[in-house]
Amino acid sequence: MDKSLQELADLLQGRVTGDPCIRIRGLGTLETAGEGEITFLANPKYACKVATTRASAVVLSATANSYGRHAIVVDNPYLAFAKLLTLFTTRPRKAKGVMTGAFLGEDVTLGEEVSIYPGTVIGDGVRIGHRVTLHPNVTLYEGVVLGDDVTLHAGVSVREGCRIGNRVIIHNGTVIGSDGFGYAPEGDSWYKIPQIGCVVIEDDVEIGANVAVDRAALEITRIGRGTKIDNLVQIAHNCVIGRDCVIVAQAGIAGSARLGNHVTLGGQVAIVGHITVGDNAMISGQSGVMGNVGAGEILSGTPAIPHQARLRSAAIFPHLPEMRKSLNRLGVRMAKVEEGLEGARSTAP
Amino acid sequence: MDKSLQELADLLQGRVTGDPCIRIRGLGTLETAGEGEITFLANPKYACKVATTRASAVVLSATANSYGRHAIVVDNPYLAFAKLLTLFTTRPRKAKGVMTGAFLGEDVTLGEEVSIYPGTVIGDGVRIGHRVTLHPNVTLYEGVVLGDDVTLHAGVSVREGCRIGNRVIIHNGTVIGSDGFGYAPEGDSWYKIPQIGCVVIEDDVEIGANVAVDRAALEITRIGRGTKIDNLVQIAHNCVIGRDCVIVAQAGIAGSARLGNHVTLGGQVAIVGHITVGDNAMISGQSGVMGNVGAGEILSGTPAIPHQARLRSAAIFPHLPEMRKSLNRLGVRMAKVEEGLEGARSTAP
Amino acid sequence: MDKSLQELADLLQGRVTGDPCIRIRGLGTLETAGEGEITFLANPKYACKVATTRASAVVLSATANSYGRHAIVVDNPYLAFAKLLTLFTTRPRKAKGVMTGAFLGEDVTLGEEVSIYPGTVIGDGVRIGHRVTLHPNVTLYEGVVLGDDVTLHAGVSVREGCRIGNRVIIHNGTVIGSDGFGYAPEGDSWYKIPQIGCVVIEDDVEIGANVAVDRAALEITRIGRGTKIDNLVQIAHNCVIGRDCVIVAQAGIAGSARLGNHVTLGGQVAIVGHITVGDNAMISGQSGVMGNVGAGEILSGTPAIPHQARLRSAAIFPHLPEMRKSLNRLGVRMAKVEEGLEGARSTAP
Repeated sequence: MDKSLQELADLLQGRVTGDPCIRIRGLGTLETAGEGEITFLANPKYACKVATTRASAVVLSATANSYGRHAIVVDNPYLAFAKLLTLFTTRPRKAKGVMTGAFLGEDVTLGEEVSIYPGTVIGDGVRIGHRVTLHPNVTLYEGVVLGDDVTLHAGVSVREGCRIGNRVIIHNGTVIGSDGFGYAPEGDSWYKIPQIGCVVIEDDVEIGANVAVDRAALEITRIGRGTKIDNLVQIAHNCVIGRDCVIVAQAGIAGSARLGNHVTLGGQVAIVGHITVGDNAMISGQSGVMGNVGAGEILSGTPAIPHQARLRSAAIFPHLPEMRKSLNRLGVRMAKVEEGLEGARSTAP
Repeated sequence: MDKSLQELADLLQGRVTGDPCIRIRGLGTLETAGEGEITFLANPKYACKVATTRASAVVLSATANSYGRHAIVVDNPYLAFAKLLTLFTTRPRKAKGVMTGAFLGEDVTLGEEVSIYPGTVIGDGVRIGHRVTLHPNVTLYEGVVLGDDVTLHAGVSVREGCRIGNRVIIHNGTVIGSDGFGYAPEGDSWYKIPQIGCVVIEDDVEIGANVAVDRAALEITRIGRGTKIDNLVQIAHNCVIGRDCVIVAQAGIAGSARLGNHVTLGGQVAIVGHITVGDNAMISGQSGVMGNVGAGEILSGTPAIPHQARLRSAAIFPHLPEMRKSLNRLGVRMAKVEEGLEGARSTAP
Repeated sequence: MDKSLQELADLLQGRVTGDPCIRIRGLGTLETAGEGEITFLANPKYACKVATTRASAVVLSATANSYGRHAIVVDNPYLAFAKLLTLFTTRPRKAKGVMTGAFLGEDVTLGEEVSIYPGTVIGDGVRIGHRVTLHPNVTLYEGVVLGDDVTLHAGVSVREGCRIGNRVIIHNGTVIGSDGFGYAPEGDSWYKIPQIGCVVIEDDVEIGANVAVDRAALEITRIGRGTKIDNLVQIAHNCVIGRDCVIVAQAGIAGSARLGNHVTLGGQVAIVGHITVGDNAMISGQSGVMGNVGAGEILSGTPAIPHQARLRSAAIFPHLPEMRKSLNRLGVRMAKVEEGLEGARSTAP
């Protein structure tokens, strides 16, 4: 496949400078792109590489110097490049149907153009939309519902009655709808509280590998539209995650916590149960959030405090030993001074 | 199914106040329960909702106001409700036998009324008890032993020779008996130490999704009876976990650590290797435990210290910058005072 | 199988003291080994147990007292014992071929003496070396390449085009080559950046259970020769891990980070993206590394600082409340002294 620079500019809603007719058939970085390829400048740090790149064209912003290169000027070169990457690298999907070695239960509804690989097992009453791909060794329990254009990678499990929206991608080994961790004390032991709710994953969510999202005790654990979840994340029962959140690898969210929209959790963050995190809040990696977080707050540390305050205190932490020594020495000096002052007084006339 | 209030009271070892003959056919929360349903009051915070609930009956403690409602009085309303939930929501298990698409090795022993789903692979010499459910794509390696009433969810692996007791539930993707992480240095490289022990999981244990429990190097990694383990937990080789422990998501226990009975580890806790944690100890989320912990201790932080002390210090942490400034200013003032005192002395007669 | 003490000494490049002809047929610890078995002394703490062990021979270093026992003297008794353990416990591998219930795509190349278990699914164009074992329910996507003597345990997924070297062992549920976590902001939402790179795992790497190693965005996520990775570790896209590193359970390495050779990351460590960790650096458990780390540095804490400095500050952390009180009291005393000095001055003649 190749495209003219003008065609690409139209796709990106950008403006050509230079020759709109040159043909582009691939892309690369400022260093790796060559003849017939397009590259991009997103980080001003690399601006001077535009002069020396061997690429045939460059995607850049209006403020950047194109060094006379053929270029497409856009508002967001990074996004534009991502779109070109999609254009040039996505192979058309070929539906393979239900392959030998896949197992379907009773009353399964299948949309059109599905691909269901060997080793995948689909429980009774499952409903599957159009253009769904189920890679090998996926398990869908009874009553699961998948929307259109869903991709579940090898080894994913979706437990009984969970519902997954359109265009959702779930990577390998992830578990949707395992029982929430709920027990009532009974003497010294623990009585299991049945977890009879489910998980609902809204449209355009992507979930990484080996994640666990527990079903609600009674109601719904919900992942809001467009939210992106990285690998090895834990989402406990009854959590409600808003739209377009970003949850980085190994973060954990305890039961019944609620995240607003566009919240960012760094890697290995812990959110305790039953709290609310406001829209656009950002929690820095490894932090432990113990209470409600207001919209737009930026927190870090355990327990989490405002990020800037935490940086200031963390910078002083290594000085604690010298601070303690100073303090002790000041105490000694103070005692001497107090004594001396007493002496000065008593010798005063 | 429906039951009289008296029948339910008998089941819960509680006492009816109001009409023992009313029929109950389901349950809900104080807000959601309606006509013919029972609800519960566990948290005194919601006591006044008993007056307004549309439920036909309430489970509550002797100290709570029933507002004239039909009620069952019990010692522990939360536990009682969990039992009602089990009663009303558990469907009778139907054994499905060994389904097409399951693979059994040689010399496999099967109990009665098992359900073995497609994609499940059972190695040579495996012994499986009665009423065991193996969901799809489970793998049991050679010589594994499962007790009665065991449920292994889709994607679980149990490695060679591991033994699992009665009524154990293991959620999706969990791995029992992977090799312990043991290497001997050999020059700049690492020589793998064979891990020839196994894992023993005692009765009534429940383990969440995507957990890893490593086999012992030589002997046994043991999870004690009734212990509950949440998702994404790491248990290293040679660990011995006592009875009725609660290990919250993403906690990690390093090699040869020993937990007593009824220990609680919060989410993302780390326990270093070769230490002992005493009975009933509680470790707060994200803490790192570096040494032995006495029975009943409540620790938090990294390195973990007593929880209350840690809270007090954590409250002061944000004030470190101002403390350092005060300290510096005090040093300056002290120097002035010392000088002044010297001056006062020298001017003294 | 049994061997003479001399044969074992030759294998270990050690020296016999005592009778080189005695026969050894197994091994155990100083406590558990009996007649006909060999044991080892690695930790000087247990030196006196050599006198009382019931083992027929002992592996120890030149500096240890053999108490007149038949012995093999070696430089590194722990390594020697690991080698004996391998010798006495490794069963010869029997190739089982492609078993019924395994699924092979088109143009799959198989080496000699492979074992491919039921439930394993191999995509088109996959190339597999000699003596490879694929346990049940493994999934290899299109174009994967496996070297010789590779063992993939049940439930492992290797995604499209990833390459795995010789003698690599990957434990259950681990995912190699899931998409990196890359999105470009587009208004309030996130646009998925195609992840078209791959993962290369070099020779002699071992990876634990339920690990996630993401494919690179454009190029290669690389795990260097001989590196050992524990369970539940996260390795993000574009990471380059050197040779012979040790990465303990639940550690996470963010995108584009580079580790040198022989780096050790403790459990639950977090390495932020785009930084470099030098050769032989050691990061203590739960630490968060926010910037480049020099060769041989030993760091701990979040943000990570030199380990010894961190221990000293951590020891003072519990004293913060008393330090703050002292500081406040000193302030009060200082004010009094200043006032007193003023008074002394004004009363001075």
